[in-house]
Formats: sequence, structure tokens, C-alpha cells
Amino acid sequence: MSNVLLTNSTAKKLYKYAKDFPIFDYHCHLSVKEMYENKPYKNITEIWLKGDHYKWRQMRTFGVAEEFITGNASDYDKFYAYIAMLETAVGNPLYLWSKFELEFYFGVKLALTRANAPRIWEKANQAIEKMSFSPLTAIGMSNVDTVCTTEEIFCDLMYHRLLKDREDIKTKILPAFRGDRAINIDSPEFAKNIEKLGDVANFVIRNLEDMEDALRQRLDAFKEMGAVTSDFAIEGLRYVPCSREDADAAFRRGLKGDIADIDLDGYKSYMLHFLLKECYKRGFSVQLHIGAMRNNNSAMMARLGADTGFDSVATTPYQTGLRDLLNHLSTEGVLGKTIIFNLNPADNAYIGTLIGCFQGNEEGTKGKIQMGAAWWFNDTKVGIENHMKALAELTHFGSFVGMLTDSRSFISYTRHDYFRRLICSYVGELAEKGEFVKDMAILKKVVADVSYHNAKRYFSIFE
Amino acid sequence: MSNVLLTNSTAKKLYKYAKDFPIFDYHCHLSVKEMYENKPYKNITEIWLKGDHYKWRQMRTFGVAEEFITGNASDYDKFYAYIAMLETAVGNPLYLWSKFELEFYFGVKLALTRANAPRIWEKANQAIEKMSFSPLTAIGMSNVDTVCTTEEIFCDLMYHRLLKDREDIKTKILPAFRGDRAINIDSPEFAKNIEKLGDVANFVIRNLEDMEDALRQRLDAFKEMGAVTSDFAIEGLRYVPCSREDADAAFRRGLKGDIADIDLDGYKSYMLHFLLKECYKRGFSVQLHIGAMRNNNSAMMARLGADTGFDSVATTPYQTGLRDLLNHLSTEGVLGKTIIFNLNPADNAYIGTLIGCFQGNEEGTKGKIQMGAAWWFNDTKVGIENHMKALAELTHFGSFVGMLTDSRSFISYTRHDYFRRLICSYVGELAEKGEFVKDMAILKKVVADVSYHNAKRYFSIFE
Amino acid sequence: MSNVLLTNSTAKKLYKYAKDFPIFDYHCHLSVKEMYENKPYKNITEIWLKGDHYKWRQMRTFGVAEEFITGNASDYDKFYAYIAMLETAVGNPLYLWSKFELEFYFGVKLALTRANAPRIWEKANQAIEKMSFSPLTAIGMSNVDTVCTTEEIFCDLMYHRLLKDREDIKTKILPAFRGDRAINIDSPEFAKNIEKLGDVANFVIRNLEDMEDALRQRLDAFKEMGAVTSDFAIEGLRYVPCSREDADAAFRRGLKGDIADIDLDGYKSYMLHFLLKECYKRGFSVQLHIGAMRNNNSAMMARLGADTGFDSVATTPYQTGLRDLLNHLSTEGVLGKTIIFNLNPADNAYIGTLIGCFQGNEEGTKGKIQMGAAWWFNDTKVGIENHMKALAELTHFGSFVGMLTDSRSFISYTRHDYFRRLICSYVGELAEKGEFVKDMAILKKVVADVSYHNAKRYFSIFE
Repeated sequence: MSNVLLTNSTAKKLYKYAKDFPIFDYHCHLSVKEMYENKPYKNITEIWLKGDHYKWRQMRTFGVAEEFITGNASDYDKFYAYIAMLETAVGNPLYLWSKFELEFYFGVKLALTRANAPRIWEKANQAIEKMSFSPLTAIGMSNVDTVCTTEEIFCDLMYHRLLKDREDIKTKILPAFRGDRAINIDSPEFAKNIEKLGDVANFVIRNLEDMEDALRQRLDAFKEMGAVTSDFAIEGLRYVPCSREDADAAFRRGLKGDIADIDLDGYKSYMLHFLLKECYKRGFSVQLHIGAMRNNNSAMMARLGADTGFDSVATTPYQTGLRDLLNHLSTEGVLGKTIIFNLNPADNAYIGTLIGCFQGNEEGTKGKIQMGAAWWFNDTKVGIENHMKALAELTHFGSFVGMLTDSRSFISYTRHDYFRRLICSYVGELAEKGEFVKDMAILKKVVADVSYHNAKRYFSIFE
Repeated sequence: MSNVLLTNSTAKKLYKYAKDFPIFDYHCHLSVKEMYENKPYKNITEIWLKGDHYKWRQMRTFGVAEEFITGNASDYDKFYAYIAMLETAVGNPLYLWSKFELEFYFGVKLALTRANAPRIWEKANQAIEKMSFSPLTAIGMSNVDTVCTTEEIFCDLMYHRLLKDREDIKTKILPAFRGDRAINIDSPEFAKNIEKLGDVANFVIRNLEDMEDALRQRLDAFKEMGAVTSDFAIEGLRYVPCSREDADAAFRRGLKGDIADIDLDGYKSYMLHFLLKECYKRGFSVQLHIGAMRNNNSAMMARLGADTGFDSVATTPYQTGLRDLLNHLSTEGVLGKTIIFNLNPADNAYIGTLIGCFQGNEEGTKGKIQMGAAWWFNDTKVGIENHMKALAELTHFGSFVGMLTDSRSFISYTRHDYFRRLICSYVGELAEKGEFVKDMAILKKVVADVSYHNAKRYFSIFE
Repeated sequence: MSNVLLTNSTAKKLYKYAKDFPIFDYHCHLSVKEMYENKPYKNITEIWLKGDHYKWRQMRTFGVAEEFITGNASDYDKFYAYIAMLETAVGNPLYLWSKFELEFYFGVKLALTRANAPRIWEKANQAIEKMSFSPLTAIGMSNVDTVCTTEEIFCDLMYHRLLKDREDIKTKILPAFRGDRAINIDSPEFAKNIEKLGDVANFVIRNLEDMEDALRQRLDAFKEMGAVTSDFAIEGLRYVPCSREDADAAFRRGLKGDIADIDLDGYKSYMLHFLLKECYKRGFSVQLHIGAMRNNNSAMMARLGADTGFDSVATTPYQTGLRDLLNHLSTEGVLGKTIIFNLNPADNAYIGTLIGCFQGNEEGTKGKIQMGAAWWFNDTKVGIENHMKALAELTHFGSFVGMLTDSRSFISYTRHDYFRRLICSYVGELAEKGEFVKDMAILKKVVADVSYHNAKRYFSIFE
């Protein structure tokens, strides 16, 4: 991967230093079950393409038939179809990501072209076989200090428990609490999800009080298992006052699936506020993922289910709702460390300036409210560059907690490498141009902080 | 024009190859009547400034009085006023466009300054006279393979018929079906437009059934004349279900101009869906031009009419409406090739990600749903660069159908040259930096595809 | 400051020429009282950090406790806390702004690091003491031709009167009329503000007629004191028709604080229109600052009051309202010179294209409707670059009235230096790349116009 993305000589020096820091992956969708089972992969298609909807979307865009994506085509044919697409995917992040993945994990340095496809297939598969490449191989090679896996409110944390004291695993594997299922009262699965929560809490949830008890119990269980953070997906947000009585009434109706005329925003506001406050009490930082519109294609949703590549940026309003939420928590003195990820880059200026209104704190937390790293569709060269510029100009670059993976793939840790190259280039360029102090000790501190130390500190809970 | 806009040596090599491909102009507002009449222009003002509201706007911004724009000033004075404005129009696309136009068509290489104005006037006019420069001269010089001219629902296609078998014209001149007049039931001209449609269909349109018959007849007539595509201008879009009965009732009221309390969104949704489905049946691709707010200046509208330089970007919501429309068509299995042009570049991320949800197809169409080229106000260096980046990072660059002119001017084909330079620079730069494979055969294929082959393929109808 | 921000050799030549032009500061929040009192500053903290909420926000983001920002910490400790934050504020405009301020006013060229903090403190304070550095020292050193200070409707202009004929002050110090207090009928201070207006107008304001009389009187008083411009802060804007009768009724209710069911948008539209028309009659240009959401943090608002660093970009709709306002004024023939500042850069394309619809004028005013300079949070390198590109591509660069300070700090005039470097780099780069004519006389004219002459001309009132 040599010097790709390193645009200046200061960047090259900084990168040499930054590249060896461990990874603190504070948000991802990796399966703990797969880690526990740790089955070796049978070939490059399985580890590289299975379940990776970023890659699937791009293949569909190239006109590849579903058979070669999620269908019954052979693994080689799927692999070939992907390479064929990449061959003309100029400027797409998948080109370099894929190259990084092949080179770092499997030592394959070939250009990603149709002509090279058979050799790439052969070499990658040889490496996979030779290493008995499995989920834990990937994590081990990736120098991951800590990984926080997103888990639902009804997760029993069994696999985390099973992995907790394994001496052969150097990486801390922690659950992160995803609160959505408690909030989305309008989901057709709401009652079923609450039932599952009751099952794991070991009592039947009949009203808001039960619900709150169960959630507190789960939060405590997560905390016991080492959790330090929570996350919430928000499409739109109207934050409205809602009394406990009204929320209770709405909740009881929600359990019956009878929500036709309840105040959805009221219940959601109540529950979001409740959970954020409970997270605050436990020292959990909060990650808000705002602005994804999901499952836009009904036919494909019916055929393949969620998380298969049919989501987009949302334009649903959330902006003043988010302000009201932060202000409410701040007024009550329970606004904790919060990372806000906005999916629409057109909102970078909004988020970058809004968070500046809620930074004050007496604990000395640097960057208490964060503008989360370029997320999902923005996790590209231009997306990251635009995010860094907004972050640097509107907030404080040196306090940034940096990159996460947000991935379902065990080999996507190379995106940290991609990211570190970009921050080194950004910092190096400003220093070389005289727009920032050219003091290598300071610059090194900045890139080390953003690569690793800031996240490590930010996600610590000292009690 | 030398190497302007070519930022690296790979780009220069690619451009040498790309520049000679023909132009496939899949959307423009050129007048077929003017082609047929083919009158020689009397001077540079007539061909360069008459009717070109891009140039008019910029002159007004510079403080030029209307007399020198659309008024009675002499052609030289208008020409001089335009050059005087250009002299300080740093960074405006009109500077290079104008330079390209003068150099390519008339061999004038002078810098565009007041001091040079008399010589430019003289030389350009000499060239115009010498060539008897006319609409067909411009098209001939421009190496246009195919031009699709936008025509209203009530167009009788007479001029297309007259031009169809002319052996002296190498360019295919095809009509493109513009559906707006059938949809805009709230236009004061609606009844009149439907009457015109009836005239050309040869029967009186009294209800929705008649309307649909007439539109089908016109679509067939367009198809017979070689049409391959249709286009629709959309400012805002609420896509709502509407029964045929309700649409019929609304239509009858619309014919009487009595629309005070009808469901405008319902009728518009019904008719848009109807036309898109009919286009699909005929293999026509669909071009959606979304987000122009027109005729903002009432006084100037009264004085000069539409399309005189008083339009802007819109901020009217269309986003979820567009999703619902695409999803509806997709669910019914009648979503065809669709190009979406968004005028507000702040929506690039929305469009770039939304279309990724509707790409799947078994026919192997590459880039079935396209993010249309940087449109209108975005047809600038930065606008095109931002569009290319969004396109490349969010969709698939190699599948892009590339540039169109969308112009009323016969000499604006040099914008394809402008565009090709920018794509060569973009592709070349990534390859030189190691962010894409540096294989000249592959890079050449990409620029040739985007310059010409993709459009040629995309707009083919095989039956 | 050497060649920082000057990216090419043409830029360096242009900058040598541009840097010596005076400053025409057409909008700022400097205190005329402070100018009149002209007290020497006691140390760098007082002149550099006191009252500068841009700097405060950034310190809060870095985790600095309020004690070191607005609290009782010593001036050195506050200074040190600020420097410590800067040390890792890669890419933040405060780094270069602070450097420019220290170097230009106090001759301190040290890098802004913790290690240098004691020496910076010492040297800057020595310079402050040696010069008896005061508000008028700052203005004198800054080569300010004219400064327009924003003043409320009830300002008695006493300090402007006292400063008017001072021969020792070379700078013209003019009041600019801020109309907001007349419009914001929903402010809890409305009645009190109107009472203050009555006090200065010397009669009791009981109804809309009185109000209009008082406002006309104030506008005349401002004009007598040399005013040439007015400004208005707008968060959202629904521009709706409202009769004089309805506005009068609303106004009377507003005086009683009884606005529960009045048409707020109606009154605001009426009053905004009234004031803009009156400004037009007096030849005042109008500055519209659109899109700030203020006082987002209630707790900090209660503790520190307004303008202390708790504002953000707004997303409240104003777009079609602004169109309607401009169209209304234009239709009546009373649309004067207007500068529109949009705080959300995502709206650059909207504003850049909208203003193109209202440029026509027979007086030959260049850039009659302006896209105001990158404002507030956008007054950064990337913010200014993006603004320049939008301005150049969508409007006419050579007609741009350029930079203002919009500041409460007497040493923020170095931002004009920052800005001029960026325009020289932008213009120089296009010329060097052949994207604009490389004629030094023309390029010099452009940078001189944008640096100074255009503003000087635009804000002149010839009668």
C-alpha cells in the first residue's frame, strides 16, 4: 500500500509513527457469536463479500444480477463479478479498501482487474487456507485494543461472557447498548421485542415501570460485562415534552400494537431521554447515528430483509429536535459524553456548530460532544476530508476521538489505516504550508491522539 | 485551448484519446425548426448571445442595463457589454465556455478583454460570414452522433419528419418526450395545452381516458420518429396514492380551470406514474430534472416571459416523494432506466445514495438509475468536480452516461470538451496518485465510456 | 506572516499590491463607547480574549472549565488555557487569526505553543504597554477607511456624534441601522424596546403609526450621522401579505405582550417590508444575516447572557420567504442594494442562484444583490474558499464587495489580511492554470476592487 493517500513528506513521517498504534473500535456490528465459534473461512468470497452490503450495492449499480450477489452463483463467479465491477470503479472507496484488505490480510498486491482475477483468487485462498483464517485471526492481525459490539436491549450477552476471560484473546470485546428497540414503538416488532426483553430480564413487562426496570437491569448487565458506550439510530427527531403518565399510556397501547392515535413523538422523546439519562448515570457515552432512511426498496426488503444494501441518506428533519434534546439534558445536568454522527454531509455545518453550544464541562473532558467520524456513505476519501475540514474549522481537531469501523466484516479494520493516512496528510499539509506549527512533537501527539489515545481516554469510565 | 483543465500528464494522454469521440446529446432545447430553416447567422452576437439566458444573467449581475441584453442596443454594443463583464468574471464558467466557443467554431484565440473586443468582433464575424455559419454548420462541426430535442406533448414532430431522411445531415435528430404539460394541472395554460394535445391527436379530450389515449398516441408517434427518452421537470414532489376515479374527477375540473379544492398532488402523482409506466413499456429512459424554482421575478416574467434568466435552485421538498415514486414503480416491476438530475448540489449525497437502492436488474444494465450530470447552475468546474466525486464515491463512475448540453445554443457543444477535460483530469489524477489502477487500457476504456459509449448504449432500444 | 495562504507566485505579486489598500468595514459590532473612552488595555488577555466568544467556544470544546474562560481565573491562566488549546487546534481559523493578531499588532512572531506561552505573554504585554495600546490604536494601525457599527433602533448615537469631528481620527465611524428590535414582536423585551425607542424619539409609541414615525425619525437621524447601510438578522422567514390594519392590531397587542394568537409572520413581514422600503428611500443598502439559531443552551444563557458562544447554524426555512420578499420589493420598484449572508453553506447554491433573479438595474450598480462574504462560522479558510467558488461560478467575482469583520474585537482587522491572501491565491491560481486571462493589470484591478474599491463604491450614497 506504500505511500498511497500520503500527500506530503511530513505526512509520511507522521504515518510511520501513527500506523502502529492499536485500534480502539468503539462501534461496530461484528458478531460475537462468530468470534466465539471462530470458524475458518473457506475462501475469499466468504470473508470478503458475504454479508458486505457496501460491496453488494456497488455490484448492483454495475448491473450485476442478484444471482451473483446474494444468489446461487459459485463463489468464484461472485468474486469475479466483484472484481469486474471494481475494474472501472474509479474513485470509489471500495477500490482502495479492497486493495488494503487483500494486501494486509492475505499479502495479495495485484491490481484489481479482470485479468488478475484468477491469480488473486488463488493467492488469497492459499493464504486463507495456510492461516486457517478465521474471525479471531482477523482481529488478532488488526492490533485491536478494544472492540465494542452493538447489541440489542434483549441481548443476553452470553457470547461476551464466554469470551470474557479467554487468555488467548488480547482484544477486549465489550458489548455496546443499542437502545432503538425500546424507542421504536411504531415498529411492527415492538411487542415481540419487549417480550424478548422480558424474557432476558426474567419478568413480564406490562407497563412503563416494568419497562424501565428491565432496561435498567440490562444497562447494569451491560456495564458488568464492561460496556462503556451506547448507541441510537435516529432518522427524524421531534423532541416534545411528554409526561410519565402519557408515556405509560402510550407504552401500554404499543404493547397491544394499537398505536393509531398515540403521540409517537411524545413516547419516543420520553424513552430517548430516559435511556440517555440512565446511560449518563452509568458513565456510558452516547452515540447518536442520525439520518439514515432504511429499506427504501420494498420488493428487495421482502426478498432479502434489512441491511442488504437498500438504505440511503434521509432528509427527515431532526435538527431542532436534537438541539432541544441536548438542551434538555444539559439543563438537567445529565448531558454526558455524546458523539453525533450525521449521515447527510450537507449537515456538517449544522452539527459542527450545534455541538459547540454544549461543550462546557468542569471535568475537563476534551471534545465532550463529538462530531462523529464520517459515517457509512461518507466513509470515503472526499467524505473523510470534508469531515476533517468541518471538524477542524468548527470544533477542535486535537480532541477528536477518530475512527470506528461500523462494519459487519472482520477484515474492514484496514479502514483505520485508510483513515490514519488521511489524517496524517491533512495535518502534514497544514504544517508544511505554514498554516499550523511545524513542530514534529506536537504533530505526532495530534495524530497519535486522533488515531488512538483520545478514544481510549474518552471511552474510559473511572469511578 | 491547449491543455487548460488538464491537470496531469495521464490526463493529457487520456484527453487526446477522448476528445475525438462523437457526442451523444441526450437532452437539449435546440430548436428543430431552426435546424430545418438553417438560416446563416448575421454576426457573433446573434449566435453567441441571443437567447442565452446564462449569459444574460451574468450581464445583469455586472450591472448591465436591459437595453444591452434583451433590448434595442446595437449588436456590437451588446457584444461589448458581454466582453466587458467577462473581463472580471474570474472563475465563472462563461469565461472558458466563451473562449472555447470562439476558438473552436471561429478560430478566435484572443483573450476576452475589452481591449481585444473590436478584434474579436471582427475576426468572429469574418469567420461566420466565410462559413455562412448556420445551425447545421455548428452541429456538423461538433461531431454530434445523436441529438435528442425536448418536445412538448402536443408537438406534431413536423420538423423531425422533415429532417429525418436528409442525407446531408449525419446527426440523428430525435425528439424527446417532455411530459410536464400533462402533469401541471395547476398551470393557467393547462386547458389550452390539453386542447393543443387534442388537436394533434385529432380528437377532443374530455376526460382522463381520452387524455391517456392521446398521450399514448403521442408516445407512439415520438417512438416512430426514433425517440428513446423522455424528460420531466419537477420542483417539489409529494407522491401520494390516487385512484383512477379521483384522477379523472380532478382532470375534468382541471379542464375547466376549477382546481381550487382538488388534490393536486394526487392528480400529479397519478399522471407522473402513468407516463413513466408508458415510457417504460416503450423502452424510453426517463430523465427527471428536479429542483428548479422558476420565474422568481414577476416583473421580469411579465416583461420577458419564461426562460430569460430568472430561475434558481429550489428548496421545495421532493426527497421522500421521489423515493416513494421509485419504490412504487420498482414494486410493480416497471421501473426503467432513469436519470435523476438534482439542481441543488446539497442533495448530491441524498440522490447518490437513494439511487443505489433501485439498481438491481436482471438485464445487466450498467448504471440503470443514474445520477445525472451536473445540471444547469452546476455545469461549472467546481460543480462538475463535486458531481464526479459524489458519483464516483456513491455510485459507479465507469457506468456514468456522461454529459448532455441542456442548451438552447447551437455552439454550446464545446461544453462536452470542457467536461471531457475534467473527467480525464479526475481519472488521471487518481491513477497517478495510486488511488486507482494505472493501466492505460482500462483508463482509456473508462473515459471513452463516459464520453460516449455509455450514453450510446444506455439510450439504445433493442426490441 | 510571510507567504502563508499564498499558494502561487501570481498570488504573491497580487498580494503585495492588495495588502496596502485601506479597509472598508461595512458591518461590525465594535463599541463606539469603547472607541470614545479609548482606555488602554492592561494586557493581552483583555484585548485578545475578553468578549471574544469565537475563542471561548473553542476553549470549551477543548474541555477548559468556565473559570478560565469567563470566570475568575487570573489573566495569565486564561491566556495560557487559550494557548494550550491552540497548540492542537490543527486547521482551526483561530490558529492563524491569533498568529496574525499577535504579529501584526504586537510584533510577536512565536509559534503558538505551551512552551512559548510565557514569552508570548511577556512580549505582547510589553508591546501593549509601550504603545498604550487602546481601541483607537488598533483602528489606526489597521488602516481603516470607514467602519459601520451596528446600532439598535433606540440608539441615541451620542458616541457617534462625539467622535464625528475628531481630527485625530482618520477613520470614518458611521452607525449602521439594525432593524431587528422593531420586527421581533415575540421577544419578551419587545415592549421595553419600543419604550426605549419612544424615549429617544421623544414621544410615546401607542400604535403602528407612531412606530413608523419613530422609525423614520431614527433612520433620518442615522442618515444625518452618515449612515449608509442597515442590517437585519433573520432566522426563518415566512413572508406573508399583511394589511396595515392587521399589522397595527398585532403591534398594539405586542405592546401589551399579548401575542398568543396574533399572526406573527404577518406583522414581521409587514415591518420588514416597511423598513426595507424606508432604507431604500434613504439610499441605505440592506444587509440580511440569515440563518443563525441563537442561545441554544438555556443554562448558559441564564448564566452568561447572549453572544457568549452558544449559537449555531439554523435550519429554519427562509428560502421561499426570501424569494417572496425580494420579488415584492422588486415588483414595487423599491428593491435596493442588498447583501445576503447565509450562515449554512449548504445554501450557497440557493442564495447564489436566487440573487441572480433580482440583479437587473438601470443605474449600472455592479453586483446590486450580493452574496455576502463567508459569515461567522464560515469565516475560515475552507469556508471562504467555498464561498469564493460559489460566488465566482454563480455570480460575478469582480463585482464582489468583499470582506467585513462582524466582530466585537478591535484587533480582528487582520482577518482582512487573511481574506486578501485567499482572494489573491484564488485569482492567481486560475490565471496560472489558464482558466482566466493572465493579464496583471486586470488581475490587479480585480483584487483591488474586491479588497476595497467595490465596497467603497457600493456603500456610497450620491444624491
